[in-house]
Amino acid sequence: MIAEKTIEQLNSVGVVETQYFSFDEITLESGEKLGPVTVAYETYGELNRNKSNAILVTHALSGDAHAAGVHTGQNNPGWWDSMIGPGKAFNTNRYFVICANVLGGCKGTTGPSSRDPKTGRPYALEFPLITIGDMVECQKRLIDYLGIDSLLAVAGGSMGGMQVLSWLAKYPEKVRSALPIATAARHSPQQIAFDEVGRQAIMADPYWNFGNYYGGALPAKGLAVARMIGHITYMSDVSMADKFGRQRKNNGQPFKFIDYFEVESYLRYRGNSFVRRFDANSYLYLTKAMDNFDVSQERPLHDVLNGIDAKVLVIAFKSDWLYPAYQSKEIARACKLSGIEATYCEIDSTYGHDAFLLEFEQETHLVSHFLKKVFFEYEVTGSYDV
Amino acid sequence: MIAEKTIEQLNSVGVVETQYFSFDEITLESGEKLGPVTVAYETYGELNRNKSNAILVTHALSGDAHAAGVHTGQNNPGWWDSMIGPGKAFNTNRYFVICANVLGGCKGTTGPSSRDPKTGRPYALEFPLITIGDMVECQKRLIDYLGIDSLLAVAGGSMGGMQVLSWLAKYPEKVRSALPIATAARHSPQQIAFDEVGRQAIMADPYWNFGNYYGGALPAKGLAVARMIGHITYMSDVSMADKFGRQRKNNGQPFKFIDYFEVESYLRYRGNSFVRRFDANSYLYLTKAMDNFDVSQERPLHDVLNGIDAKVLVIAFKSDWLYPAYQSKEIARACKLSGIEATYCEIDSTYGHDAFLLEFEQETHLVSHFLKKVFFEYEVTGSYDV
Repeated sequence: MIAEKTIEQLNSVGVVETQYFSFDEITLESGEKLGPVTVAYETYGELNRNKSNAILVTHALSGDAHAAGVHTGQNNPGWWDSMIGPGKAFNTNRYFVICANVLGGCKGTTGPSSRDPKTGRPYALEFPLITIGDMVECQKRLIDYLGIDSLLAVAGGSMGGMQVLSWLAKYPEKVRSALPIATAARHSPQQIAFDEVGRQAIMADPYWNFGNYYGGALPAKGLAVARMIGHITYMSDVSMADKFGRQRKNNGQPFKFIDYFEVESYLRYRGNSFVRRFDANSYLYLTKAMDNFDVSQERPLHDVLNGIDAKVLVIAFKSDWLYPAYQSKEIARACKLSGIEATYCEIDSTYGHDAFLLEFEQETHLVSHFLKKVFFEYEVTGSYDV
Repeated sequence: MIAEKTIEQLNSVGVVETQYFSFDEITLESGEKLGPVTVAYETYGELNRNKSNAILVTHALSGDAHAAGVHTGQNNPGWWDSMIGPGKAFNTNRYFVICANVLGGCKGTTGPSSRDPKTGRPYALEFPLITIGDMVECQKRLIDYLGIDSLLAVAGGSMGGMQVLSWLAKYPEKVRSALPIATAARHSPQQIAFDEVGRQAIMADPYWNFGNYYGGALPAKGLAVARMIGHITYMSDVSMADKFGRQRKNNGQPFKFIDYFEVESYLRYRGNSFVRRFDANSYLYLTKAMDNFDVSQERPLHDVLNGIDAKVLVIAFKSDWLYPAYQSKEIARACKLSGIEATYCEIDSTYGHDAFLLEFEQETHLVSHFLKKVFFEYEVTGSYDV
């Protein structure tokens, strides 16, 4: 009982459960067919009578469907619990929030570690290369299945933001508003380069074995190195200086090769713990989907946004050097060139790219006001009840 | 004859040869003893009668003693050939320029791949951990051996700049001027983190075998990944965009895992070619020496510079995010607080950290005027002939 009270006090959505929805087949953007496909998802709050209050939250590279609340018997809240719940930015007293694990992932949705019906074994590299658009297609099927005709909002950071942009481009009539956060319309060569080095680290691990490691030893060292590179890019020079400085670990001897500085120890810890919860092949497929993503396919960005009626809130963070603010500004500019009602906000944070998960107080103000405006405008003009 | 003419036209120092100098033993800063030690070095220009025109150039992580000119039968000029030669920044018509491979390296100076006299086999990880100060100590022995009492200048970028700062701190009376370029008085946690991930990539390679790979297969994949990480940090977001954009290679199919984008192909090429010319254990030892370096040993930087008579020219580059300008400014500020005559110059370049090797036109102006001033002032006050 005490535990439940604590959850209430924290404005948590409480205990939640991952659900699963399956369909027979999807034709991927590459033309290849894949099936059957299972999508793992969670929902928070209640869908209203008019089905006008549904918000899709899209996750980043290492995220999953578990965005808020806790699972039975576990203490870890969902990855965006600070933003989703009663009275929070994505206010579950008012909105019905959906989050699904992406296609190609490893947290319940079909991906390279799933069973290939043709062979009975995991797909491994037989899994087709998938795109951000394919992820969105699966989300669209889920929305249809839930009987939702249009989304009040699609919101997500990083790779989640790419899905938001892809929703805008593919299904503009299904999206009343979009919140791309700390993201890009396409990866720069520097972003591709960081992803590529992570992939190379995985593929350099002999246990990777061209993707065929399921049931055996994992390419743990390679994946850990990939994750360590990721972590450096998610933080900032300043946030690392604040968090670690040149602090040494355990009064470390000055001349040891590893774990001398706190920052080294932290990276190794994060790298090693990631291995236990993430599939190396998914890492390859998802980073490749991000690198190949270009929402406007080499055309000017405003071309693909022309005529779209959705409202857009673009959020960037000052110290984010992995997805620098100029990429978010480009999105906002293209929206305005297309006549879209768009707002650009740059939050003054030192947390680097991680800020989209950490700066929830400022994000809450921006997001809650924006959503309220979109929701009530629509309710009034659409003459629906709240 | 035509080749020689071409060399003359390029103001090259021409054909040069690496020389070697050995001594019995060095006591390292850690207290350990190491010996015998061989130092590989090259010199360009002539030492004048007063031995007042000697300049020591110090190299970065992957550099070597071959800073200028060409070796017989080879076409590749030294790593700073654009800066060293007749009429160049380090004008060999006037100055006697020395460059030595660092202790712990793999280009002729004693390092982990050298033969351990105790065992007859390569040291591997039996090689003691060395410091930037130990590198300087070896250079000091070389200078003594060459009969040079004091250096007109010590100049170098990146890890070379750390050696410059260490010279100032250890042998202030031997240094009439110092040029730390694109460097830091100590590594930030972000710099340590990038080095650490490179080390982890090497140590994750099973062929690394705890350093015992000499005579067998090399930890090539791990070292290549380490180098790829390095290359990203040596360039800038802008220079990568200028050089690669999102250009694809060989009309690559959109869904291949590797070598789809030009930037991926470039990184792999640079990673793989590095393996042929660099020793993985040296990579561990040298990056660790950089990470452990702190010229003022946790004291305020100006404390260790107090009372030093040398003139200092600090150069940084605007787009260098690996050694950000604020670190160079800190050096310049500490010099001024110590009463040192110091100039700080920030060159407006898009090349990132690589700029110290590439922006030689602007560097030439700064360096040649600075050196000329120091040289002629000294010649006049010291009543030496030129």
